[in-house]
Amino acid sequence: MKTLSQPTLLIISLSLLLLFLTLHFPPTQAKFAGLGIHRPKSSKQARQLAAADDDFVTFYYNQTLDHFNYKPESYTTFRQRYIVNVKHWGGADTNAPILVYFGPEDRIDYAWADIGFLTENAPHFKALLLYIEHRYYGESIPFGSWEKASRNATSLGYLNSAQAIADYAAIILHVKQTYSAKNSPVIVVGGSYGGMLASWFRLKYPHIAIGALASSAPILYFDGVAPGDGYYSIVTKDFKEDSKSCYETIRRSWVEIERVASKPDGLSLLGKKFKTCRPLRRTFDLKDYLDSMYAEAAQYNEPPEYPVSIVCRAIDGAPDGDVLGQIRAGVVAYKGDSSCYDVYEYSSPPTASDSAWKWQTCSELVFRIGHDSDTMFPPEPFNINSFTKNCESRFGILPQPHWVTTFYGGHDLKLALRRFASNIIFSNGMRDPYSSGGVLEDISDSIIALSTVNGSHSLDILTSRPSDPDWLIKQRKTELEIIGRWLSKYYTDLVQLK
Amino acid sequence: MKTLSQPTLLIISLSLLLLFLTLHFPPTQAKFAGLGIHRPKSSKQARQLAAADDDFVTFYYNQTLDHFNYKPESYTTFRQRYIVNVKHWGGADTNAPILVYFGPEDRIDYAWADIGFLTENAPHFKALLLYIEHRYYGESIPFGSWEKASRNATSLGYLNSAQAIADYAAIILHVKQTYSAKNSPVIVVGGSYGGMLASWFRLKYPHIAIGALASSAPILYFDGVAPGDGYYSIVTKDFKEDSKSCYETIRRSWVEIERVASKPDGLSLLGKKFKTCRPLRRTFDLKDYLDSMYAEAAQYNEPPEYPVSIVCRAIDGAPDGDVLGQIRAGVVAYKGDSSCYDVYEYSSPPTASDSAWKWQTCSELVFRIGHDSDTMFPPEPFNINSFTKNCESRFGILPQPHWVTTFYGGHDLKLALRRFASNIIFSNGMRDPYSSGGVLEDISDSIIALSTVNGSHSLDILTSRPSDPDWLIKQRKTELEIIGRWLSKYYTDLVQLK
Repeated sequence: MKTLSQPTLLIISLSLLLLFLTLHFPPTQAKFAGLGIHRPKSSKQARQLAAADDDFVTFYYNQTLDHFNYKPESYTTFRQRYIVNVKHWGGADTNAPILVYFGPEDRIDYAWADIGFLTENAPHFKALLLYIEHRYYGESIPFGSWEKASRNATSLGYLNSAQAIADYAAIILHVKQTYSAKNSPVIVVGGSYGGMLASWFRLKYPHIAIGALASSAPILYFDGVAPGDGYYSIVTKDFKEDSKSCYETIRRSWVEIERVASKPDGLSLLGKKFKTCRPLRRTFDLKDYLDSMYAEAAQYNEPPEYPVSIVCRAIDGAPDGDVLGQIRAGVVAYKGDSSCYDVYEYSSPPTASDSAWKWQTCSELVFRIGHDSDTMFPPEPFNINSFTKNCESRFGILPQPHWVTTFYGGHDLKLALRRFASNIIFSNGMRDPYSSGGVLEDISDSIIALSTVNGSHSLDILTSRPSDPDWLIKQRKTELEIIGRWLSKYYTDLVQLK
Repeated sequence: MKTLSQPTLLIISLSLLLLFLTLHFPPTQAKFAGLGIHRPKSSKQARQLAAADDDFVTFYYNQTLDHFNYKPESYTTFRQRYIVNVKHWGGADTNAPILVYFGPEDRIDYAWADIGFLTENAPHFKALLLYIEHRYYGESIPFGSWEKASRNATSLGYLNSAQAIADYAAIILHVKQTYSAKNSPVIVVGGSYGGMLASWFRLKYPHIAIGALASSAPILYFDGVAPGDGYYSIVTKDFKEDSKSCYETIRRSWVEIERVASKPDGLSLLGKKFKTCRPLRRTFDLKDYLDSMYAEAAQYNEPPEYPVSIVCRAIDGAPDGDVLGQIRAGVVAYKGDSSCYDVYEYSSPPTASDSAWKWQTCSELVFRIGHDSDTMFPPEPFNINSFTKNCESRFGILPQPHWVTTFYGGHDLKLALRRFASNIIFSNGMRDPYSSGGVLEDISDSIIALSTVNGSHSLDILTSRPSDPDWLIKQRKTELEIIGRWLSKYYTDLVQLK
């Protein structure tokens, strides 16, 4: 498995972006519904690579539609995709381990290329690699087609995290049986929403996975456990720490945009200033574009380039006094030199994955993320009422904002898990805005929080690069060592108990 | 709360009997479908007492129909009954604990009278007592009525253990909120199926219950984890250990019944011999009646009378050489002197609870219990094929025999839970046939197996009596001490972590 060389932002897996893009806009406003996806080029590259690599073999499992209901319709099955790589597996005879990547809210086929944690460590662990696609994404669509699956709330009802991790349980047991790997220990890995699923899976299915690596998993972002202003506070902090003057310029720019827009022909002036590909319909569209860009830069604020620095260097380097000229310089630096800029790129028509994720955030996964004051953005706190109204009008159902903490916990996590559970790594990069919803303190000897001061979203599980700094190499090494200890203990137990 | 004085078998809670009676007959045969319930008189007594005791207050919660699906129908609610007693509660100010009894497959209204573990220990723990009725039982029926709820597999589909423990989670959190008891630790208690739910709840909802007392919970009776012949092996052992000659007489009796029946007018002769209230239609009916009686005597083989001893003393005391006369003497001793005996008492028309439980065992809870050889019964091993056929013809669905172990685990339990989970007591009486599906070895320092050599089914949580032997008093005391330690640790953690 060769290390892929990809430009900074491009190595970001599409799945992580999906979570970001949907969440970063508070879906309290109808105008935000159905956000488009900025597909990184890396995904296409990866997909080509995936198709070319014979070691990754695709299978389909006849998955039960509803694991928690026994009415006849629940027995309907759908084809769920999973990918197996046995190249480095030590085999059933030695009970060699299985590393499982949990597909998040996106297709799975190219995930292996982005998620270096599995491919790069397979030889070390002599591990079988398994990638499972999440129901309702990619090719793993119930009811025969996305059109049918997404028809209404009745057909979408089966799309939720409890069903998804039950799917994973069924497929992992199926694969273990297929490879006669009954005693092979399973480690589950995921990033972002997939990381949430990985940690929840370890909690709910400890008999199937002996441990979980949950990278940048904002499991506390529900029911008011983590403060709702965390996300944009960290975006702001990233910029402020990079450059106080850059932060000040951005902070001032929103009023300046409105000031220019209020002039005669103001929107046209703004459009020219920012070289928009299409005429600006309203100031919101430009502000929304910039908001998305800053959030993306912060979330994927990766070494060695550090996109936030790229933006800020340009903003600070442009002539003082022309706030919008400075902001434009930031856009040009971040997006690259171009004849025009598509301010609607983040809000293009929703893909199937966007819509599926929108359903999830409107039903079960109610992330309370808003723009509170004390950020560099115009205040716009999360509003549960307008959020609820929006979801109701779109899907005809009410969000269940308390369910995640009822089912998975979250309040007083340390109190609940200090003497219960084991073998979970919660890894976070503190520059990632989502770290504000993550587990940042050790819960016990074996439920460990691994944070890096300069890390970004799920950086630790992404494919490594020659330019990776020491702190990142060290974080990954620590993860390996911890997982190694879990495996050793497991093998000791296995000898004693079998 | 005064100790109830009740005759030996009569103190058995109806709920425990329900589990027994449905399981004890292998439901592989259509003729066994819809077994009637032998309602112990104690239930009625208890119900009267419940109505009279003002400390037990009944409430209803608007429960979500389907916790794991977000289609509009899932949002339908039903009134779920729960009962609260705050008489001895130390209050929210001191974070005094909450003891929760999980209603099993029966109505909840009189449970408190049978389950002495809660009422007798409430003063000691200064505990709030909470009893929650299981969905589809008693008054907690979705769709407005049992007729509607039981119409078909679609309306019954929502009846399963995962939904049931999710109900419990929602109601416990609701009660904690109602009494501002956020930091009050919760201990869940259950017997038989309710014990299974208690242990599963601790595993799935550790953030809601800090510990579980799972009394006589046969959680290993699935997917071939425990051998299917365990139940009748222990019934046999109970009789054999009580009296070798009694065991031999019973063992010989089945052939003797057939021999007499094969005579001219044989069924009539048999009927007269056993003083049946109605004419015998077939030898099976008599054998089935005796089978049920032996199993019941073994399962509830309680001190000080020990029903198995009552039966065996009578069998051994009757004139030798007349096998059927001996067996009849056993019946008379066990059932009491009567002008006639109703051999159809165990198979009277099914109640709503019977039917609901039948659904559960036909869908999710596939207990593999059969009469294997080496018992004192005619061999009749569990047959998954005829079982499946029977369930399919009755409900139109296929049983899912692997789901319990997929969702809750069971295979290699010690390997899975040695380094995961805590605070569960699995209590068993080794004379209880269900102990063969129970957890009989400590899993870790805090997942403890507490067995008594002479105990019967869920005896430890039933209301105590002056005649209780020392070993039973000791078992209950040990349970109290263990739970006391859980609470102490919790309160220490609470001070440190809040």
